Amino acid sequence: MRDVAIIGIGMNEKWGELWDKSIRTIFTEAALNAMDDCNVDHIDSMYIGCMSGGLFVGQEHLGSMLADNLGADFIPATRVESACASGGLAFRQAFMDVASGMSEIVLAGGVEKMLDVDGGAATYALSTAADQEYECFHGVTFPGLYAMIANAHMAKYGTTRKQLAHVSVKNHMNGSKNHRAQFPFKTTLEEVVNSVMVADPLTIMDCSPVTDGAAAVILCPLDLAKKKFANKPIIKVIGSGHATDSIALHDRKDLTWLSAVELSGKRALKMAGKKIADINVCEVHDCFTIAEICVTEALGIFEPGMGGPSVESGITNIGGKIPVNTSGGLKSKGHPVGATGIAQIIEITEQLRGISGDRQVNGAKVGMTQNMGGSGGSSVCHILEVN
Amino acid sequence: MRDVAIIGIGMNEKWGELWDKSIRTIFTEAALNAMDDCNVDHIDSMYIGCMSGGLFVGQEHLGSMLADNLGADFIPATRVESACASGGLAFRQAFMDVASGMSEIVLAGGVEKMLDVDGGAATYALSTAADQEYECFHGVTFPGLYAMIANAHMAKYGTTRKQLAHVSVKNHMNGSKNHRAQFPFKTTLEEVVNSVMVADPLTIMDCSPVTDGAAAVILCPLDLAKKKFANKPIIKVIGSGHATDSIALHDRKDLTWLSAVELSGKRALKMAGKKIADINVCEVHDCFTIAEICVTEALGIFEPGMGGPSVESGITNIGGKIPVNTSGGLKSKGHPVGATGIAQIIEITEQLRGISGDRQVNGAKVGMTQNMGGSGGSSVCHILEVN
Repeated sequence: MRDVAIIGIGMNEKWGELWDKSIRTIFTEAALNAMDDCNVDHIDSMYIGCMSGGLFVGQEHLGSMLADNLGADFIPATRVESACASGGLAFRQAFMDVASGMSEIVLAGGVEKMLDVDGGAATYALSTAADQEYECFHGVTFPGLYAMIANAHMAKYGTTRKQLAHVSVKNHMNGSKNHRAQFPFKTTLEEVVNSVMVADPLTIMDCSPVTDGAAAVILCPLDLAKKKFANKPIIKVIGSGHATDSIALHDRKDLTWLSAVELSGKRALKMAGKKIADINVCEVHDCFTIAEICVTEALGIFEPGMGGPSVESGITNIGGKIPVNTSGGLKSKGHPVGATGIAQIIEITEQLRGISGDRQVNGAKVGMTQNMGGSGGSSVCHILEVN
Repeated sequence: MRDVAIIGIGMNEKWGELWDKSIRTIFTEAALNAMDDCNVDHIDSMYIGCMSGGLFVGQEHLGSMLADNLGADFIPATRVESACASGGLAFRQAFMDVASGMSEIVLAGGVEKMLDVDGGAATYALSTAADQEYECFHGVTFPGLYAMIANAHMAKYGTTRKQLAHVSVKNHMNGSKNHRAQFPFKTTLEEVVNSVMVADPLTIMDCSPVTDGAAAVILCPLDLAKKKFANKPIIKVIGSGHATDSIALHDRKDLTWLSAVELSGKRALKMAGKKIADINVCEVHDCFTIAEICVTEALGIFEPGMGGPSVESGITNIGGKIPVNTSGGLKSKGHPVGATGIAQIIEITEQLRGISGDRQVNGAKVGMTQNMGGSGGSSVCHILEVN
């Protein structure tokens, strides 16, 4: 396998309610920004993460449509889907494409246009990431599924309502320093706890929002990056791990343990030759506050049951020992589901380049991303290192 | 890149209206048949081609769901979508996964459960493979798009209505010898021409059907295949080519020319070190009769304009110089869109193994598959060779 590097990154100016732009427009904007970032005018192939073009905008066949709109005539372009982990998997396929020797300059993008349908239709579209026949047809959607996980975690480990709220407060604090964030306001424990109840114990301030947005990165062989793209710090992709788990919650032995996250993390770290303690900064999948707590435990950052006390202690703040979701996470930055995994890669790339401004983690050399589908039915992790 | 081989193949006993089975059941049946075929009890990773689980059965996140149902706990499993070329692209990603050195035993599967919705909803779901904003929202769906291509081909080259019908007659003749085919009956030129008009000049007997079905193949490194799976002929994957084109017809210079097909074919042949004349048998994407004619021209099997006269002459029959769609093609075998590309691989594998019975092409050593998305917005070709 060839070594692979990230040379370009791009997003929309701001994520959120992009009423005046279509799915092709927001993708193309992000893709052109990524190409500008590394000054390439041609790509050899492209992978698009998108969860449900069919249900959100009535458009499948996104590889062809988006390559066409980008002006990248005739290139191989493939859409990859794994619910909210679609972006992370598009990145993984792009990584394999370069690593295998098939292609040189490859774009990995993610996009979701979620606000063109009403709230009920969006909830239905998102619920297709859970097990339809065993879960959703019977009335439970994602806030309900994660509320069950939260209640199980509270019962097993004594995790508190306030600890859940700390995730939201921290991520909004980080997002307030990110001009691209959909909701760049700060919040307080009281505001989170007292906001509208969605699924007990989760209030609306425990839930990531519905978002329009796109993100793109450019990869190439490390050798080529050193030769031609060395005007910016070169970010190496040193580990990629992917795993699935039972899609339905009732099939798992322990509701509080995300096995796909554990395995995807271990596989990525093994490929990278790193330990979890080597990671200086990470972006994880905080679709709900409880998710960040469970993920930090499953990745081995904290012992089982210690995710809640850890976020409460401030250890995952910027300036803490292991900053988590410096971008604002899905909670504050927004969660256009297919784009999220790529935006995580962008945040870590910026951290490793040292250009994160007020969000910069000092001395960050190795970073990790963790992107999840459904209630943990799939998870994909990547380890990046500055060259 | 490592050399890659196909060691196992499996489908459902029969494609068609599988009312008593769900999407997970039909996929698992095909996957287990493929695993039985090569006697493996474990796979390292999996790729699933599916066009629109969201619109057809309300289920996205198919990688996780299907790996779970297969009992392939915790493996990486990724869904790939490129409209009706989803299966071919799942195969390509699986090929890259093995070629790159990431995985050893990889399953490439395809599935579509299309008959759980009514005809109007199926037509809508399929139309999301065309350009929604420029084509479908204005009333044109796929029979209309291919009818425009057919009329342009007839006007430019003098292709006749009867020549279109010959594609249907040939493919039904081949399908009548395939026990898995959805419509294994023979037909005549008169029956095709006089069947119900769908979009002038295409009658219903020019159109592939709506189908429930699944297919799966198992790939591994060639070295491993020689060592452990040599009890059946080993089929090498010697070429893979993929290309996109403008998704909307109005953006193309020539309605009769499928550039993505041309380029995907050339790329696959180049990788394989073969010429089109080296191909002994091929499966191409005959979603409509005119498609097979255009594809055989774009691949360079026949000169532009000679696709119609060629099928009329019998040259593409079994026993002809270059047999096309020996399986019965999409027209007779059925077209569960995400599964079609994998079923093409299976037909060619069986031909190269020499086990195609009444459909056997004598002395077939090198075969080709061509799988297309939309009205030619994407195309993926593979070249297989018996070791």
